[in-house]
Amino acid sequence: MAEWQQYLDENQPRFLDELLEFLSIPSVSSLSLHTPDVQRAAEWVAARMISAGIENARVMPTKGHPVVYGDWLHAPGKPTIMVYGHFDVQPVDPLNLWTSPPFEPVVKDRRVYARGASDDKGNMLVPILAVEALLKTAGELPLNLKFLFEGEEEIGSPSLPPVLEEHRQLLGSDLVISADTGQFAENRPALIVAFRGVCGLQIDVVGPRADLHSGVYGGAVTNPIHALAHILDSMHDADGRITVDGFYDQVIPLTDGDREQIAAVPFDEATYKERLGIDEVFGEAGYTTNERAWARPTLEINGVWGGFQNEGMKTVLPSEAHAKITCRIVADQEPAKVLEAISRHVGRNAPPGVKVTTTPFEGSSPPYLIPVDHPGNKIAHTVLEEMYGEAPFYMRVGGTLPITSLFLSILGVYSVAFGFALDDENFHSPDEFFRLASFEKGQRGYAMLLERLGEQGI
Amino acid sequence: MAEWQQYLDENQPRFLDELLEFLSIPSVSSLSLHTPDVQRAAEWVAARMISAGIENARVMPTKGHPVVYGDWLHAPGKPTIMVYGHFDVQPVDPLNLWTSPPFEPVVKDRRVYARGASDDKGNMLVPILAVEALLKTAGELPLNLKFLFEGEEEIGSPSLPPVLEEHRQLLGSDLVISADTGQFAENRPALIVAFRGVCGLQIDVVGPRADLHSGVYGGAVTNPIHALAHILDSMHDADGRITVDGFYDQVIPLTDGDREQIAAVPFDEATYKERLGIDEVFGEAGYTTNERAWARPTLEINGVWGGFQNEGMKTVLPSEAHAKITCRIVADQEPAKVLEAISRHVGRNAPPGVKVTTTPFEGSSPPYLIPVDHPGNKIAHTVLEEMYGEAPFYMRVGGTLPITSLFLSILGVYSVAFGFALDDENFHSPDEFFRLASFEKGQRGYAMLLERLGEQGI
Repeated sequence: MAEWQQYLDENQPRFLDELLEFLSIPSVSSLSLHTPDVQRAAEWVAARMISAGIENARVMPTKGHPVVYGDWLHAPGKPTIMVYGHFDVQPVDPLNLWTSPPFEPVVKDRRVYARGASDDKGNMLVPILAVEALLKTAGELPLNLKFLFEGEEEIGSPSLPPVLEEHRQLLGSDLVISADTGQFAENRPALIVAFRGVCGLQIDVVGPRADLHSGVYGGAVTNPIHALAHILDSMHDADGRITVDGFYDQVIPLTDGDREQIAAVPFDEATYKERLGIDEVFGEAGYTTNERAWARPTLEINGVWGGFQNEGMKTVLPSEAHAKITCRIVADQEPAKVLEAISRHVGRNAPPGVKVTTTPFEGSSPPYLIPVDHPGNKIAHTVLEEMYGEAPFYMRVGGTLPITSLFLSILGVYSVAFGFALDDENFHSPDEFFRLASFEKGQRGYAMLLERLGEQGI
Repeated sequence: MAEWQQYLDENQPRFLDELLEFLSIPSVSSLSLHTPDVQRAAEWVAARMISAGIENARVMPTKGHPVVYGDWLHAPGKPTIMVYGHFDVQPVDPLNLWTSPPFEPVVKDRRVYARGASDDKGNMLVPILAVEALLKTAGELPLNLKFLFEGEEEIGSPSLPPVLEEHRQLLGSDLVISADTGQFAENRPALIVAFRGVCGLQIDVVGPRADLHSGVYGGAVTNPIHALAHILDSMHDADGRITVDGFYDQVIPLTDGDREQIAAVPFDEATYKERLGIDEVFGEAGYTTNERAWARPTLEINGVWGGFQNEGMKTVLPSEAHAKITCRIVADQEPAKVLEAISRHVGRNAPPGVKVTTTPFEGSSPPYLIPVDHPGNKIAHTVLEEMYGEAPFYMRVGGTLPITSLFLSILGVYSVAFGFALDDENFHSPDEFFRLASFEKGQRGYAMLLERLGEQGI
């Protein structure tokens, strides 16, 4: 047994106590009431890094909640790796659905119940503990290591881009390892190789200057809702394909290899439909459900409204109608180009008699795709296979993790996903929990990963 | 000069005083606070009929506000005519926009300002005064006459159908004259020959059992808003024609004569567009704006909603989407058949993966169309031409007046429109007024109309 493994085994009771202490800090980043708690969590992390032997550990202020940095840079000739995670958590509403108070952690059946247990305090503490085990046993690390933990992940990381821009040198590295991800199942690992990006806009249709009586004007004046329905329906064909001219231009097509990797991930359509309460799945023709949800771009109407919405009937021809649209985009689509294509399409499909405008939303994010055969992925693959006795699935995430794109676009560094959350752990919901098995397995995984990265380089 | 004309001339000051007294009763039928006032207005009308010499005048209770009945039936061999009007009024909000209090009538520049002045107290008082003049001068009427005034017109006449059903015998007549209508302009009369009917339904689209994260499910599950937009857009073609199978089946096509009559009514498109704030008019190809608004059926989306409607973006794939639709229908369309056709269309156009239901609204009303050459219309035409020195326009109303359909379907009697409101008189708005010129001209018109109907029969 490696010395670090023995160290980990011996110190688990203390590590668990520390996790519970960390989880008891209500670091809800979205509520200003908890701003001091987010600060306190940052200070707790910095202190814990110092006690682990990590150097230069410090809380760095930003325009919003702080980030925490630390490093160990005494392995000349070896790669420099930056580990990422976050110490802020989601709000706890609805509080009444929690079995025990969200900031009074409880351990039950080898699970720690608390807000942030899985997302991401449990996961982000793991690499600190692994590093402590390496430093306390070998006295050094097999590579150069930096840590960057933020306090705004749950509110979209608004202060992270300026931090990255300002500290390019400090944060420069050869690879980012993200501790804010998960595995496929308790006994089956996964490597995430793509996130979809996001961009969106609002469509505003304005017709007559006031709501009109449908008896007096109905049939003679363009109804803004009719116009909007026409515009919205013009965006997809009956096969679920997006008909916006140029929308797919920048999409990297899925290769046969990509499709095989996606198909390898277990998917049970009957369970899926049952869970969602739908009779049929539906999406772009020629693609499987997981391909549609993970690896193909979408144009989704998130909201629509106009005219009368109360009980009964009102014979009104409304003055306005509105819709909100977001797209999940895939490499190499650019948000600005996608939104331009949609705006052009809206303009071309606007019926006569109404004014139609589009307004892009703030907060777009490009897609992220790391080559499956990236050296970082290859090493993580080997480690995970060794840990689990099964090769990891290559998975893609349909959602958006802006930080991976930020690290790539600002620092020029790919991110490898190496976290141990599991899908059923109620992150963002009541009774969030983290498995102690994952907590312990993760520490071993990080120690192995850092050793292997130090040996093989990237 | 006819004796009745002299009587009218001599009694105008008293008639005006009486109108002001009638207008000071706040008979707002929609507000329960004013229920006693509606009753008081009914009693005022019955008393006024008695003093005019009308017999059997009485307030008749209903399940809601009362109706007032009276008659004079001593002209054997002559036709029986029933005059209709209403003594209830609209609410007065917003009160602060009134120049003088709505129930403290003011006469200014030969206009009476008060709620109900034009709609319909001024207009319904007119035939009572004309009948008084005839009875006080000739001692008899040239025909048999009945009056039916209601107190629920402004809330959709809910108690009128049972009253008509229950009193078929009492209310039986050869023709109804409605005093709840208007003329084209101060110097130009009009005869209304059609009202559109109305019917409607709600469309409810339900997809996944809860709102879904668009990153996780977007592209793989039918979005109810997409489904709804498709259904809604499928209901019209690019030429504004309704594409619901069977929708037009029962429509009586406009004849060349009908279209000439409609085209004869002055219409200025530039003013129309300017007033509504639109750049272009739009509707069913092959028809003019007035044909579209008066004489062609419509399918109008009155409201639509689903998903996220607040500021900014939310990446949700909503569970539900909804729309409300009403149709203005024309003779001989039947509400039930129209709604069935739409429901079938919705079912056929529902995309896979969602459940779509339609629910008809209460309160549908069939269309109304009186033949232009109906004897009642012909006589009214002659009288109006004589009064104004100009032939009346034959007009249609795009809105719905359920009572005309009720009189036709329950009593089997057509209604001729013979009222003297003008479009600018702010009915349903602040500063409603009625022109004294119309008040006086109407009295003369009714005396002439009754004489002519007595002479010529119908």
